[in-house]
Amino acid sequence: MKQKDATFVAPATPYGHSGIAVIRLNGPNAHQIIKTLSKNCKIQNRSPVLISLYSSKNIAIDKCIITYYKKPNSYTGDDLIEISCHGNPSIIDTLLNNIIQQGARLAEPGEFTKRAFINGKLDLLQAEAVGGLISAQSEIAAKIHQNTLSGNLSKNIKEISDQLITRLSGIEHAIDISEEELTSSFFIENKVALNDLGNKLDALISTFSAGRLINDGIRVVIAGKPNVGKSTLLNHLSGYDRAIVSDVPGTTRDAIEITTIIDGIPFKYIDTAGIHPTEDKIEKIGIQKTNKEIDSADLILYINDDPKSNKFPEFDVKTIHVLNKIDLHKKIVKSNSIIHISAKTGKNVDILLKKIKQTMSVEAISTDTPHLTSIRQYTALKQASEATEQSLGLMKARSPNMELVAFELRAALDALDALMGKTSPDDILNNIFNNLCVGK
Amino acid sequence: MKQKDATFVAPATPYGHSGIAVIRLNGPNAHQIIKTLSKNCKIQNRSPVLISLYSSKNIAIDKCIITYYKKPNSYTGDDLIEISCHGNPSIIDTLLNNIIQQGARLAEPGEFTKRAFINGKLDLLQAEAVGGLISAQSEIAAKIHQNTLSGNLSKNIKEISDQLITRLSGIEHAIDISEEELTSSFFIENKVALNDLGNKLDALISTFSAGRLINDGIRVVIAGKPNVGKSTLLNHLSGYDRAIVSDVPGTTRDAIEITTIIDGIPFKYIDTAGIHPTEDKIEKIGIQKTNKEIDSADLILYINDDPKSNKFPEFDVKTIHVLNKIDLHKKIVKSNSIIHISAKTGKNVDILLKKIKQTMSVEAISTDTPHLTSIRQYTALKQASEATEQSLGLMKARSPNMELVAFELRAALDALDALMGKTSPDDILNNIFNNLCVGK
Repeated sequence: MKQKDATFVAPATPYGHSGIAVIRLNGPNAHQIIKTLSKNCKIQNRSPVLISLYSSKNIAIDKCIITYYKKPNSYTGDDLIEISCHGNPSIIDTLLNNIIQQGARLAEPGEFTKRAFINGKLDLLQAEAVGGLISAQSEIAAKIHQNTLSGNLSKNIKEISDQLITRLSGIEHAIDISEEELTSSFFIENKVALNDLGNKLDALISTFSAGRLINDGIRVVIAGKPNVGKSTLLNHLSGYDRAIVSDVPGTTRDAIEITTIIDGIPFKYIDTAGIHPTEDKIEKIGIQKTNKEIDSADLILYINDDPKSNKFPEFDVKTIHVLNKIDLHKKIVKSNSIIHISAKTGKNVDILLKKIKQTMSVEAISTDTPHLTSIRQYTALKQASEATEQSLGLMKARSPNMELVAFELRAALDALDALMGKTSPDDILNNIFNNLCVGK
Repeated sequence: MKQKDATFVAPATPYGHSGIAVIRLNGPNAHQIIKTLSKNCKIQNRSPVLISLYSSKNIAIDKCIITYYKKPNSYTGDDLIEISCHGNPSIIDTLLNNIIQQGARLAEPGEFTKRAFINGKLDLLQAEAVGGLISAQSEIAAKIHQNTLSGNLSKNIKEISDQLITRLSGIEHAIDISEEELTSSFFIENKVALNDLGNKLDALISTFSAGRLINDGIRVVIAGKPNVGKSTLLNHLSGYDRAIVSDVPGTTRDAIEITTIIDGIPFKYIDTAGIHPTEDKIEKIGIQKTNKEIDSADLILYINDDPKSNKFPEFDVKTIHVLNKIDLHKKIVKSNSIIHISAKTGKNVDILLKKIKQTMSVEAISTDTPHLTSIRQYTALKQASEATEQSLGLMKARSPNMELVAFELRAALDALDALMGKTSPDDILNNIFNNLCVGK
């Protein structure tokens, strides 16, 4: 981490030509820097003002709305200034350069949120949800992260944590007294409680499969020989002409990815170069990419256009076999395992969609309850659950080793503390914040 | 135009995943709509507050910073609310949908600036500069539009306009009195003044050639037979690998356009499919595109890689002839009209760049003075200048027809009034505001 109290700056809105753009400037020198660039305009806490900012050569860069959030009542907990200028990359760059000349440095990814975490404005789960909320690809995914950002998941985990602490202190007390003093009700009560905690942890863990699909999207790779209609199917599934379609085999050189939202779940359809022997250098690169895409797929749609061929290659992931161009063929042997479609006319594409949803077990998902969305969350809760289960197993022994029970409960607590960011090492923190965009 | 006092809404920042996004809501119902969505939070003039906005189903959409600019002290002159939410297209869409449900409509392009124009916050030149400022492709272009937005060009034109009015009223007075009462000094004074006004108008008109190049960029089309190294040259000129380069002829199927800023002037380099007879369907489309690009070029770089061939096709636009791959050839006959380069090693690419700048007469351009940037401005001032010149010509006659002089001066004034938006018909206004982005 750079110097703790450094002042840093970054654009907070996407680069582009737009009505406005916002630049964020955070840290102890933020206020002074804007005073300098505005030739000593008065900038008051939470009073947006329209003022010109000037370059060191005394040329007006832009007239901006400046809003000053005095510490600690800002997003970061530090002095924070938002500069709203005309939405143009040139203007953004000129402003950034001039602010940096005055002593600020460019922010690292997620550094604003990291300051909010360090200043105790957010716990680590909430900080992670900020990133999830920004990168969410659907309304449902946004709602799930909104739920976590509002603190619901943290609250659930805090409750489990508190109950683990209660159990741990009881058991640590038991270690200090003689075995004879421990009543059978003490053991029963602890076993019931640990069982209950294990169930609560497992309930949270079970939300991950839906959470992951909603958050990451389902990668559906469209594969098959050249010219079987893969790009045409992609265009149909995504509803608009993204891929170039022609009747020359080998048209798709790069893998093309299109995300569409179906019932709130992002489906990433990946159109690939046809798989076939080729001497064409560029096509070869395309086919190598295809194999990579197949490796990272959640589902493969394997397209064939020969009604006589029932041979489909085997893949390590879930696969749906599709026979395309049924509009061209008169006699087709029906098969339950093969979906017959015409990508050109759109016939049976709806049946294919239904089959996709069914294969991926995508049902209506409630966004009112917390969902895990990251491997980190899943792994931490899995560790806590396993340790809790271990402690319960130890408790069930005829004469339980209370020190081992305490050891497992401490392991469970440690996993939860790391999850909340209380004890997370720097590399875990950096990993989370580096995944956020610059300017957040 | 829709209902004058309608409330409208639009995102003001580009769609994308970013720290924050800003939505603007303008009009008489803006305040009430946000009160409803925030469940009656108190929203005060120019006091940004962090509040949750809820959907009609009572689900929190996002926690947003709301800033209310009470009329008339806002950008538009109307009640204006800026909503700063997490930068995610799903969240933006959900917020827009809920605001529209409450009775707002989606803004038309440039409608916020149009309201500012209608409310007298900006004249038409300034409104045009807002659009120019947002779409400016370089710092110099941004400065030129900043200059116009600050009112410098308007001030110049206002002065010319005022002097024309002075002349016109003097001449209208002269019409009413007998010819004998007019002194020779009256004629001399008017001729000097009209000559001076004509010069001022012409000085402004002369800024258009630089203004246009700075604003629009110089379109440089790279043309030539397949595999002569066009894409390699493009990559060199633009400084990074944008085009796929390979040694298979015909790799570039679509025209690729890259803008680079050289000395503050945007150069748009357009790499094209090679020009040659082909049976390949897709390449044919590419070559058709090439011919289109050539038609709209400011400059053509025609690339050849055969040192024995001195034949270059003729084009209707400025052309620089380039012999590429000089690293492969031992003997090359020097020629003043052909630039010898190696796009692969980069040899002489600097000489080519110099030649490009020289051919386009791009010199250091001052941004302290106003520049015309649009055909509309150019045409209006040209009309005013021609009418002024006509009036001066009439004045020089032995016995001038004062009514005709007055007619020409009125024509000059009309042109300037239309330029400033005082008398512009709706279609001109719409044309200007429709070119602005939605949300500005």
